[in-house]
Amino acid sequence: MLTKSQVKYIQTLNQKKFREENGVFVAEGQKIINELLAARHMEPTAIYATPEWWLHHAAIKNEIPFVHFQEITQQELERISFLTTPNQVLGIFKKPALPDEPLYQQGISLVLDGIQDPGNMGTIIRIADWFGIHHIIASPDSVDVFNPKVVQASMGSIARVHVAYHDLRHFIGEHQEVPLYAATLNGKPLSGFGKVSSAFLLVGNESKGVSRDLQQLAAHHITIPKYGEAESLNAAVATGIILSHIV
Amino acid sequence: MLTKSQVKYIQTLNQKKFREENGVFVAEGQKIINELLAARHMEPTAIYATPEWWLHHAAIKNEIPFVHFQEITQQELERISFLTTPNQVLGIFKKPALPDEPLYQQGISLVLDGIQDPGNMGTIIRIADWFGIHHIIASPDSVDVFNPKVVQASMGSIARVHVAYHDLRHFIGEHQEVPLYAATLNGKPLSGFGKVSSAFLLVGNESKGVSRDLQQLAAHHITIPKYGEAESLNAAVATGIILSHIV
Repeated sequence: MLTKSQVKYIQTLNQKKFREENGVFVAEGQKIINELLAARHMEPTAIYATPEWWLHHAAIKNEIPFVHFQEITQQELERISFLTTPNQVLGIFKKPALPDEPLYQQGISLVLDGIQDPGNMGTIIRIADWFGIHHIIASPDSVDVFNPKVVQASMGSIARVHVAYHDLRHFIGEHQEVPLYAATLNGKPLSGFGKVSSAFLLVGNESKGVSRDLQQLAAHHITIPKYGEAESLNAAVATGIILSHIV
Repeated sequence: MLTKSQVKYIQTLNQKKFREENGVFVAEGQKIINELLAARHMEPTAIYATPEWWLHHAAIKNEIPFVHFQEITQQELERISFLTTPNQVLGIFKKPALPDEPLYQQGISLVLDGIQDPGNMGTIIRIADWFGIHHIIASPDSVDVFNPKVVQASMGSIARVHVAYHDLRHFIGEHQEVPLYAATLNGKPLSGFGKVSSAFLLVGNESKGVSRDLQQLAAHHITIPKYGEAESLNAAVATGIILSHIV
């Protein structure tokens, strides 16, 4: 049975402050838990699951040491879950350490300026993973990547894409050898760009776009041609369209 | 002051059943309300807004007849709003009549097979609007386009894109003159396709994709090349990427 303090502890992990204090985050659902358990650098500290999940994952208890495994009822899962429809299993994982020296010079990395919506952040991580991008650099005011809704929307891709938070002006200044492309509404049409082997792709806040001072640092401004009336595209969709073109 | 029955009525509109009974839907926030008020075929039945909104929209009371206009407090807005952060104004609008004879033969239309997530549906409507697409045909099991979350995610584009619900097999059978493209995970790479002037683009359910029997009806199967590990792309993102390529 889940104790009151277990329930309370898990609930606090909805807040960034408590995730940082404890160095852990929550992930849920069969697919995402399986992806995280399969990723070498992801360490669970606890797995809470209903009998139907344990039925197919009993072996795991012998495979991973030092983890708190607990069978809980559907009702208990509903008490601790952050999902509208809890799905068999909730895990607590250690926040992974960032790789020592990310090789930003190789390939494409995403630079996110103030992405606020957890769904967008998770979707962007999933898109990065699809296009083989391993590094995302986010401004400090972007949503926390270990927010349960981000973890959920990333559909497990959080296990393969590293997100680091930096002051972007400073970060870009320190990596001037990498060509900087900004997604803007008044740049050169996408069709004017070819494949790119090394680049930072700078994507802006959902309503304000890329901030002006950062736009000025970008050598290339990419715009997705508009044929209709919508004022803008969703930030994650725009990221996907540009990556599909330049990767 | 809002009466109890007003509050109750608005709250019921979160359910499809009551939206259909009353032939209306709810939209919220300055941007979306402004877009809907600007669209000729959108008729409000009631506008509830805080004093700060009325300050800039007082003239509207004389411009549109037969509408219930009411000034409410922030607290009242919070009681009727479906948003986490209510934004000055909530409107009730008549569900627009579908155009008499949509010209599916011209341009590109989207055909959606079981899109479940309101955020995805709204984002797809916004993408369609960006690319100048006016018609979406959705399977009957797709989420209702007048769900408040869909309206919200469409960011006002719902005023310019018509969504009709049809049995897709039947609908496609009746429009065999229009080339059918399906977004799948095992088709021909996107780069193998050029611009398209007339087409149905068939996009599938978030987890199951396009159903098999519909895939078989499609002359062309489009796949977005994958360079990394993610199992799939978000349905709205995939729609945006393919449209960006073929429009």
